[in-house]
Amino acid sequence: MVRSRLNIGIIGIGNIGLEVFKQLISNSQLSELFSIESVLVRDIKKYTNIISKDIGFENKVDIALEKLTDSEDKFFSNNNIDVIIELIGGLEPAYSFVKRALEYKKHVVTANKDLIATHIEELIKLSKKNNVKLRFEGSVGAGIPIIEVLSDMLKQNQIQKITGIINGTSNYILSSMFENSSNFENVLKEAQELGFAESDPTNDVEGFDAKFKIDILGSIAFGSRIPLKTVYVKGISEISNKDMNYAREFGYNIKLLAITERKPEGIYSSVSPALVSLAQPMSKVGGNYNAVEILGDLVGNLWIQGEGAGKNSTSSAVLGDLMGIYYGSNDDINLSKGREKYLTREEIILKNYIRLSVEDKYGVLSEISGIFSNNEISIASVIQKDIDNSSGVVDLVIMTHDSKGINFDTAIDSVSKISSVKEKPIIIRIND
Amino acid sequence: MVRSRLNIGIIGIGNIGLEVFKQLISNSQLSELFSIESVLVRDIKKYTNIISKDIGFENKVDIALEKLTDSEDKFFSNNNIDVIIELIGGLEPAYSFVKRALEYKKHVVTANKDLIATHIEELIKLSKKNNVKLRFEGSVGAGIPIIEVLSDMLKQNQIQKITGIINGTSNYILSSMFENSSNFENVLKEAQELGFAESDPTNDVEGFDAKFKIDILGSIAFGSRIPLKTVYVKGISEISNKDMNYAREFGYNIKLLAITERKPEGIYSSVSPALVSLAQPMSKVGGNYNAVEILGDLVGNLWIQGEGAGKNSTSSAVLGDLMGIYYGSNDDINLSKGREKYLTREEIILKNYIRLSVEDKYGVLSEISGIFSNNEISIASVIQKDIDNSSGVVDLVIMTHDSKGINFDTAIDSVSKISSVKEKPIIIRIND
Repeated sequence: MVRSRLNIGIIGIGNIGLEVFKQLISNSQLSELFSIESVLVRDIKKYTNIISKDIGFENKVDIALEKLTDSEDKFFSNNNIDVIIELIGGLEPAYSFVKRALEYKKHVVTANKDLIATHIEELIKLSKKNNVKLRFEGSVGAGIPIIEVLSDMLKQNQIQKITGIINGTSNYILSSMFENSSNFENVLKEAQELGFAESDPTNDVEGFDAKFKIDILGSIAFGSRIPLKTVYVKGISEISNKDMNYAREFGYNIKLLAITERKPEGIYSSVSPALVSLAQPMSKVGGNYNAVEILGDLVGNLWIQGEGAGKNSTSSAVLGDLMGIYYGSNDDINLSKGREKYLTREEIILKNYIRLSVEDKYGVLSEISGIFSNNEISIASVIQKDIDNSSGVVDLVIMTHDSKGINFDTAIDSVSKISSVKEKPIIIRIND
Repeated sequence: MVRSRLNIGIIGIGNIGLEVFKQLISNSQLSELFSIESVLVRDIKKYTNIISKDIGFENKVDIALEKLTDSEDKFFSNNNIDVIIELIGGLEPAYSFVKRALEYKKHVVTANKDLIATHIEELIKLSKKNNVKLRFEGSVGAGIPIIEVLSDMLKQNQIQKITGIINGTSNYILSSMFENSSNFENVLKEAQELGFAESDPTNDVEGFDAKFKIDILGSIAFGSRIPLKTVYVKGISEISNKDMNYAREFGYNIKLLAITERKPEGIYSSVSPALVSLAQPMSKVGGNYNAVEILGDLVGNLWIQGEGAGKNSTSSAVLGDLMGIYYGSNDDINLSKGREKYLTREEIILKNYIRLSVEDKYGVLSEISGIFSNNEISIASVIQKDIDNSSGVVDLVIMTHDSKGINFDTAIDSVSKISSVKEKPIIIRIND
């Protein structure tokens, strides 16, 4: 079957947009299938400079420059555009642009996780209503083909659980803390200097970025939209050098895990630091890598790992989405399974690591273990560590067996009130 | 869009066929899309018993039994069949059956690696000519979605290299040798008792199974058929306990690696044991797992790991292929890029591990290192190990730097002829 070329409209020529732009005009496989019709930018003069300087395909640049426009009306009403690629990120104006594109019956490709996580249901409905495709492979794990694996290739499976390391910045920080015994603040600073963390790192280190991503994956896997507010989120900024060292001593690493899981009582989704056994491959995912483990009833454990960020990897996803639109593909995402019960952390049974700073005197451990036992929490191990100062305060590190969230919270609440307990307890989930 | 159900014809009700059969009649998502029209078996009575006993969906079994036929003519000329699933394995009669199915304009799903590796070009042509789909996700890595990742999701990438552990039996054996310091023969026997190795394990342990699989992956990745005879193959039966221990001492594991790689001078494909650094994730792929690492120009390193065998995982691939045919998908495999140059091991530059049994006397090491140096091979390290007997023979373990295959072979040939060298040298590639 001979198909005609698809005409592309691009919104935004940043880091990724520029790479996509370059690939579309320089890769012969792609330029046979696609041609750039128009590029919507805020400031034509600025982007003229960027494109002239950075692209460097002399004879093609002039043609490219003619395509720049700063008129939204001209851009969206251009009847020649078949597909719009949105690469400006964030909620607005991306949300308005994507809605407008779908309403004008353009296919849409985006790598915008904030947008998709926030409006996935509405945007998918809108795309179906207008009989166009909405694809967003790059919104989770950049070039790692995780969305299509879930929405297409594992359709025949009942997905039971997804566990992921899907935020590169926090994984870089935690990996560096583990490998170099550095503390959070120093590693964050270093990561910022190397460009691996943003100047305001909140989104990454507090788990909000991973929350968007796991919400997208869970919604696709379970066939119904997981409300963002049901995702429990805790970041890594509380994790100290000490915790990393104790974890190592017990045979663990600490990773920011995003998890979504179908339990008999409902779906539980969370982003939080977790102790991961050094025997598990998840503990070895280093540096900027992302990894996702999928448990399906037929396929068993499937593991996908790759470069979860960067302009090359993200442009691989964006261009792959374009190819999927060109050739047609089996990636229909259905969120119509209806509302599920969403579990809170209080309802969930977990093992936990607790680090307490306590006065070094008789009876403290007995009081604390009494509280745990009163709340039906059994302790798997305790170690007490002298700190090298004369404050008379020691670290007490406790690992629990399985316990219910509500019981655990009650116990921690009581423990915090003991006068010998000197600081806010540090609590980290233990991943089974 | 409302599509009508697809009618399925199944050839073969073995382990996997039975699981596919069960899923098709018991999984409501699948039974909405597909119905079993006919099952071709050799002996109706035998399969009547199997199905009655093993399926156990009482009310559905009677209906299922009516579908059994031992008449090939009736089966292939049945106009109601839309898709034929071939699950008998091996070359014949599978090859004739699949050709006949395609000629009768039926879509075909198979998990038969021997068949696909041997006839991929002809069968793809035949399917295109008859305007039907031929899908074979299960032929490599069972449920791991590697074929579709290469043929669909990474289309926009130039694939540079694929490295895989894609034979479960040999990986089970090598992992067990590494972990338990057992020898090859004992572990093989144990694997056979546990059902992880066949009574004739040749195909698995001599690398023929992995050869078929890497040939399929390479052909898809590079867009042109890799002739099977250009794939260098060496199995694991020569690997001893000793080699595993020396490897560990040097910081390596030994794995059966299947590799296909585009080098500037051509494509090189091989299956052979390799020393893999314990720092590489490939060294940690244990037990029955399969893992494939893909290097693409945009996506970078992508890693997929999962259960590479078994009826559940394989049926996930087969049912996924069915879904792909139902919904239509972007998995067109193009082998038309034309012939490439295929490199031989002699032309390739590699690092090697060599274990020699030599008489423990002066001058031997000097003679051997002289031969290496004359052949432009530089030695990275040598260790000499006394063996605990009085034979006066010691192990000499040599690790080389990069050297060209032809030079290396010439050197080994000369070394073998030294009278102090007592056994055939053991040679294992070192994976970079």
